[in-house]
Amino acid sequence: MTLVESKPGGAGLSERFAEVRARTCRLAASLSSEDQQIQAFDYASPTKWHLAHTTWFFETFVLGREPGHEPPFDPTFSVLFNSYYEGVGPQFARPQRGLLSRPSLQTVLAYRETVDREMVDRLRSQDEAVRADLVELGLQHEMQHQELLLTDILANLSVNPTSPAWRDETVEFSSAPATSKWIPFDAQLIQVGHHGRGFCFDNETPRHQTYVHPFELRSNPVTNAEVMSFIDDAGYRRPELWLSDGLAWVREHGVEAPAYWRRNPGEPAWRTFTLYGEQAVDPHAPATHLSGYEAHAIATWLGARLPTEQEWEWAATTQGGSPQEGRWLEQGPVVPRNSPTTSPFTSLWGETWEWTLSAYQPYPRYRPLAGAVGEYNGKFMANQLVLRGGSCATPANHVRTSYRNFFYPHQRWQFTGLRPARDAQ
Amino acid sequence: MTLVESKPGGAGLSERFAEVRARTCRLAASLSSEDQQIQAFDYASPTKWHLAHTTWFFETFVLGREPGHEPPFDPTFSVLFNSYYEGVGPQFARPQRGLLSRPSLQTVLAYRETVDREMVDRLRSQDEAVRADLVELGLQHEMQHQELLLTDILANLSVNPTSPAWRDETVEFSSAPATSKWIPFDAQLIQVGHHGRGFCFDNETPRHQTYVHPFELRSNPVTNAEVMSFIDDAGYRRPELWLSDGLAWVREHGVEAPAYWRRNPGEPAWRTFTLYGEQAVDPHAPATHLSGYEAHAIATWLGARLPTEQEWEWAATTQGGSPQEGRWLEQGPVVPRNSPTTSPFTSLWGETWEWTLSAYQPYPRYRPLAGAVGEYNGKFMANQLVLRGGSCATPANHVRTSYRNFFYPHQRWQFTGLRPARDAQ
Amino acid sequence: MTLVESKPGGAGLSERFAEVRARTCRLAASLSSEDQQIQAFDYASPTKWHLAHTTWFFETFVLGREPGHEPPFDPTFSVLFNSYYEGVGPQFARPQRGLLSRPSLQTVLAYRETVDREMVDRLRSQDEAVRADLVELGLQHEMQHQELLLTDILANLSVNPTSPAWRDETVEFSSAPATSKWIPFDAQLIQVGHHGRGFCFDNETPRHQTYVHPFELRSNPVTNAEVMSFIDDAGYRRPELWLSDGLAWVREHGVEAPAYWRRNPGEPAWRTFTLYGEQAVDPHAPATHLSGYEAHAIATWLGARLPTEQEWEWAATTQGGSPQEGRWLEQGPVVPRNSPTTSPFTSLWGETWEWTLSAYQPYPRYRPLAGAVGEYNGKFMANQLVLRGGSCATPANHVRTSYRNFFYPHQRWQFTGLRPARDAQ
Amino acid sequence: MTLVESKPGGAGLSERFAEVRARTCRLAASLSSEDQQIQAFDYASPTKWHLAHTTWFFETFVLGREPGHEPPFDPTFSVLFNSYYEGVGPQFARPQRGLLSRPSLQTVLAYRETVDREMVDRLRSQDEAVRADLVELGLQHEMQHQELLLTDILANLSVNPTSPAWRDETVEFSSAPATSKWIPFDAQLIQVGHHGRGFCFDNETPRHQTYVHPFELRSNPVTNAEVMSFIDDAGYRRPELWLSDGLAWVREHGVEAPAYWRRNPGEPAWRTFTLYGEQAVDPHAPATHLSGYEAHAIATWLGARLPTEQEWEWAATTQGGSPQEGRWLEQGPVVPRNSPTTSPFTSLWGETWEWTLSAYQPYPRYRPLAGAVGEYNGKFMANQLVLRGGSCATPANHVRTSYRNFFYPHQRWQFTGLRPARDAQ
Repeated sequence: MTLVESKPGGAGLSERFAEVRARTCRLAASLSSEDQQIQAFDYASPTKWHLAHTTWFFETFVLGREPGHEPPFDPTFSVLFNSYYEGVGPQFARPQRGLLSRPSLQTVLAYRETVDREMVDRLRSQDEAVRADLVELGLQHEMQHQELLLTDILANLSVNPTSPAWRDETVEFSSAPATSKWIPFDAQLIQVGHHGRGFCFDNETPRHQTYVHPFELRSNPVTNAEVMSFIDDAGYRRPELWLSDGLAWVREHGVEAPAYWRRNPGEPAWRTFTLYGEQAVDPHAPATHLSGYEAHAIATWLGARLPTEQEWEWAATTQGGSPQEGRWLEQGPVVPRNSPTTSPFTSLWGETWEWTLSAYQPYPRYRPLAGAVGEYNGKFMANQLVLRGGSCATPANHVRTSYRNFFYPHQRWQFTGLRPARDAQ
Repeated sequence: MTLVESKPGGAGLSERFAEVRARTCRLAASLSSEDQQIQAFDYASPTKWHLAHTTWFFETFVLGREPGHEPPFDPTFSVLFNSYYEGVGPQFARPQRGLLSRPSLQTVLAYRETVDREMVDRLRSQDEAVRADLVELGLQHEMQHQELLLTDILANLSVNPTSPAWRDETVEFSSAPATSKWIPFDAQLIQVGHHGRGFCFDNETPRHQTYVHPFELRSNPVTNAEVMSFIDDAGYRRPELWLSDGLAWVREHGVEAPAYWRRNPGEPAWRTFTLYGEQAVDPHAPATHLSGYEAHAIATWLGARLPTEQEWEWAATTQGGSPQEGRWLEQGPVVPRNSPTTSPFTSLWGETWEWTLSAYQPYPRYRPLAGAVGEYNGKFMANQLVLRGGSCATPANHVRTSYRNFFYPHQRWQFTGLRPARDAQ
Repeated sequence: MTLVESKPGGAGLSERFAEVRARTCRLAASLSSEDQQIQAFDYASPTKWHLAHTTWFFETFVLGREPGHEPPFDPTFSVLFNSYYEGVGPQFARPQRGLLSRPSLQTVLAYRETVDREMVDRLRSQDEAVRADLVELGLQHEMQHQELLLTDILANLSVNPTSPAWRDETVEFSSAPATSKWIPFDAQLIQVGHHGRGFCFDNETPRHQTYVHPFELRSNPVTNAEVMSFIDDAGYRRPELWLSDGLAWVREHGVEAPAYWRRNPGEPAWRTFTLYGEQAVDPHAPATHLSGYEAHAIATWLGARLPTEQEWEWAATTQGGSPQEGRWLEQGPVVPRNSPTTSPFTSLWGETWEWTLSAYQPYPRYRPLAGAVGEYNGKFMANQLVLRGGSCATPANHVRTSYRNFFYPHQRWQFTGLRPARDAQ
Repeated sequence: MTLVESKPGGAGLSERFAEVRARTCRLAASLSSEDQQIQAFDYASPTKWHLAHTTWFFETFVLGREPGHEPPFDPTFSVLFNSYYEGVGPQFARPQRGLLSRPSLQTVLAYRETVDREMVDRLRSQDEAVRADLVELGLQHEMQHQELLLTDILANLSVNPTSPAWRDETVEFSSAPATSKWIPFDAQLIQVGHHGRGFCFDNETPRHQTYVHPFELRSNPVTNAEVMSFIDDAGYRRPELWLSDGLAWVREHGVEAPAYWRRNPGEPAWRTFTLYGEQAVDPHAPATHLSGYEAHAIATWLGARLPTEQEWEWAATTQGGSPQEGRWLEQGPVVPRNSPTTSPFTSLWGETWEWTLSAYQPYPRYRPLAGAVGEYNGKFMANQLVLRGGSCATPANHVRTSYRNFFYPHQRWQFTGLRPARDAQ
């Protein structure tokens, strides 16, 4: 986030604030207070916790700095809903978030209302009583949590043998096949990183020069049909396809298919658990819920590799078209599909995040933001890989060409797939 | 349970059925659906699960056997709410019960209503359409779960740093001191086990002869004041007081006080988490939430030992007065106190379960019940210790002189304390 | 150990001391210093450690008390070779014993020589410079470690895929079938516990009255052939045969056969790892390396149960013949067989320890020895079961009718089997 | 390893083979067979295993390919001493290597002699009966294991409370202070990776263009005195200095100082366990046994950062002098010191490996070697960081400017320290 450069304040900001905040509640609205309570994995926070934490973020980093701010809504919340900001203070243990039956959902919603009222009042006042850059950071943070809210509820519902749905919608799961081509790029000194207009996170800066070697990027991501062939070709049991850590992960967890894939006893057809309950796997849709290790192995099996994040960014910049073309959270349904596109690339934006080869590391001359918000990105620059392009659960207008998402290579509860790359001949 | 001998059927049974079943719901009524969802420990089932499981018990073991019974309320419940009956079929994993946001509490309450309606109809009908002995077993089972429901919610709420209460009542926590005397018993051949009138569990049978050596049993249980002295005397750090497994347990978990005991930073006074929130420890009340290991160490520190279950039963039979004198769940509040008594023993009935020295093992010529209900008791006869006397969370009329409760020696989330015994001089 | 009663001192004691101590070294002599170094499991101490620990026992509990004793051989040994005597001081972590490459085996053997020289000098002197009862305790302790030394080396060598042998002997593994009969016993008040002549451990005292109900005990222990039938009858997968904790143990560890049993790929015949390398299972030999859980399940499968330790002791006392008839360590080979007997019972003494139903608990009015040697037995009276009768790895003249061995019900690296019992009709 | 380019064969190769192989045995010679048996951590293989594994490497990858090769020395060795080559076959479990008391050290030494004899015969024959490039790979592999042998024995001996020494030498531990300056480098397109003359590993190739931004590298590595100041400044407890994963590692393991640092009770002076036993920490020597997380935190605390591997390589190439100037294993003692140098940098070569900021990832257009030897490097390109420059335990002539060592950021049993870098002003 280059705070000095983001100037989204003024009249529009209070409307955008209200709109973004309201969408979070809408996403949760189909869930009972019990659904919003549960946490099936250390990493998958309860919906109620997301609702509270995103509110805490505004209360702490925006309102808390301002003169005239009321005492906190509830002083215990500074511990309960602090995710990982050591600079703010201690945090309630992450794996136990699902045990906080109090505060109730009702209280959390009242918390949201109270904070939102003060926020909107201040945003509408002439006195410019809040820092617009921090409001913008809070909104981008909220959008990230909208995606997490959905991937977490998918994870949390997945352990229930009755396969419950987030929303009771009838959803069609059948994509048309996409064409698969290799798009070539020449070697050159390029610029990557955020341009300097509009919001960005600090990890996208500074924009800098780097050298790319000649490469090719596939026009479409790997599909579910390809993953089924990988399975049939014993891909999960062939050591030569895997990184050493990946093979250890496969063996330790007995991995045999992407996350959420299942087969009924005696039936060969793969099914998958989705936000709409259990469904048949859509063969021509982009594969998703793959770990970085699986992405590496599948790319290797295809005779290819993962792209570096610089290659991805350069391809997206020069031939990727506009992120507006992607299918995002607002369009629904929240499940990857093939969608028509005017660029050479299909599903580059939205649908499923794409693993890259690149470790998540600081750009040259990177500086984190000052203060506790500086913990937002920088301290996670170890052991993770960069992902690019957004997913069907990402809100529109959130992702950029320079946007860097990051997860550990063994994680796969996000919508994560891959797009093969290769060295140019 | 000697099924052939229990004859509690007829007109009274349908009323008693309705009464016992209604009490379970009343115990849960002060809790939100979120409170009823959570499970903070593998052993501490959610309230909602208890509501469903006790209903499943009647549906499976009473209604399920009868001709004319409707199809099950929901076929998935036979897995979700089966606790441990291998003879019935597979069980949903115990540590994950808190993740079942579906079925909702509302559905579980509807499940209770449906099963209760059929049960009451059959109990009232002339046709004797259910086996009264199994109904009685179900009611005794329900009473056990009423106690578990409370001890589990205590455990589940205890991890919340805001110390929430089960019920918002003002409760006085201050007992008068009890007199402490040693009551002697001679050596002799005695009879222990259930007499044969009224309901009992199979583990209380058969009544049989055994030989007790001369012993003395203390008139009152160990108090909180004694435990505080034990702590002040470095009791938790003196190996000579502990069983080897107990010492390992203390060191592994850093145990320094009974479960739920806390001290505010910088303050010497012990406080404890109760069903009514955090409270000062009541010094003259019977100590509770002690593991069997702690019970052994405290008894040793007092120059005494735990009684065997035969000694306890013999003392209760001959000088223990009537269980009616005890303070039980119905009286409340659900926290141990001293209560007046006419027998030589105080707090023998109710208040807090008392650990015995005796491993939970089959009585000579013991036979479990036939069928899946035979799994109720017999298969747990390994690694556990017998406890006697009931607690403040036990429903009235549930516990007998011959009643055998059992837990692992490291467990202490029940209301569990001790009454010292010693060899007669 | 009733120390006041054991009077084995005088001239004979120094010879017996030398003989027992020398046997330990002979048992280890076929092993290289590398073999004597390794520890494959937390519970399986290295041979070298046994050699040092048994020496430390004499140095600490016998010589260390005496005036004129030299400073310790090496002051670090008081930590390194203290097994579990909290009263003596801290102990080197048990699971890391196999990491002590220093002191070397050579130094440990020198340690033995130094301590043995002082011991023999004192035993031979007129001044009665040591307490004979503690010497006797040390010798009985040494004999227990001779058995452990062998069972531990069996465990430690078992992880080596080359199936190495303790001794390169040709050993015949083929027993004749034993007759199987039920021997009846009447109900009565009996006396159990040590008689008061000769050495015993404190846990065998005091001798006391107890009541046994009518029972029958099988003339022969369960055989390997019976275990193979149990396996073929899906015994390991039938919940109704198992204690609940036992079933959990089977499932967690994927248990499918006794410890050390193996099958070559594609071959139906069971083989087993022994102290003489891998061998075919001897069908008519007593089954061994069974856990207490397996013993319970196999007995249940046979329509029987385990005997209580009182039943076992009474049967052994009245119809068991003399322990001298058993086949013990000195006779070899160290692997259970059927051996001829003049009593109604076969293999009651030696061959394989027999699990009982009885939890290892204190006898009425039990008092541990004073001082740190009081930790020998009493502090382990939790969670363990009593075993009776000795094994092919037990030295002769070590086991008595009243001898109580004890292990956790999941353990099976000792020579442990079972003899079925049943209630008399 | 660019196999086609390495041509070190001919007369010299057999001498070099004999010399390198003999050095491994000399490094182990001061250790008993017990010392060579132990494995205190999953990662720290026994000395005996190193002796066997390096021999297996030649037998498998050099001799095994050749016509006329005898059957293997022992067919079980292909499993026992295969480290991680899935293409060769299954491997004995790494954490259990310390349990292989058989084969004995004597047998392993005979194995070495047998393989060495055949190797030397073939190397001396006219027929060029082995592939020189694979021999060279085997020798470089052996040199890597010479370093590991020492760092593993340091780890394995460290758990022994008697602080045993690898070699009983008197070693002086007192360095003169080094000057600390910042050496600047301009932005530019540079070439990194192996030049193409002499041996290299495949991970150093292909040489390729990359862009470096202006930076400065400190003339000397971080010293023990600086680490002591970091500790005194509460460095291990200040979250703002740490990566998130690093902070979790510190808290989980209670890290308070570099590996092997200790303090005597009541004494403020730091001591450290070395290959020569416990010693006082040498304040002016390069700090070592630091994890990558600690390296990051200490650099941050100094207001600096770690260099990228490209920055390091460029600095070493242009101003680093010759690796010959470093102090290597052959010179001894094996403990970091300051040593005089003619380049602007001190201790750049040898003494202690230097953590870089760079994740261990493939160079552009990287191709692993064909066949199982291709598993040597490529499959480890996940979750690890690159280290540069060699250590006091690295054999001379092993490390190059382009040499990439790699470890996980939490590991610190190697000689690993850091040299601060910073962005140029």
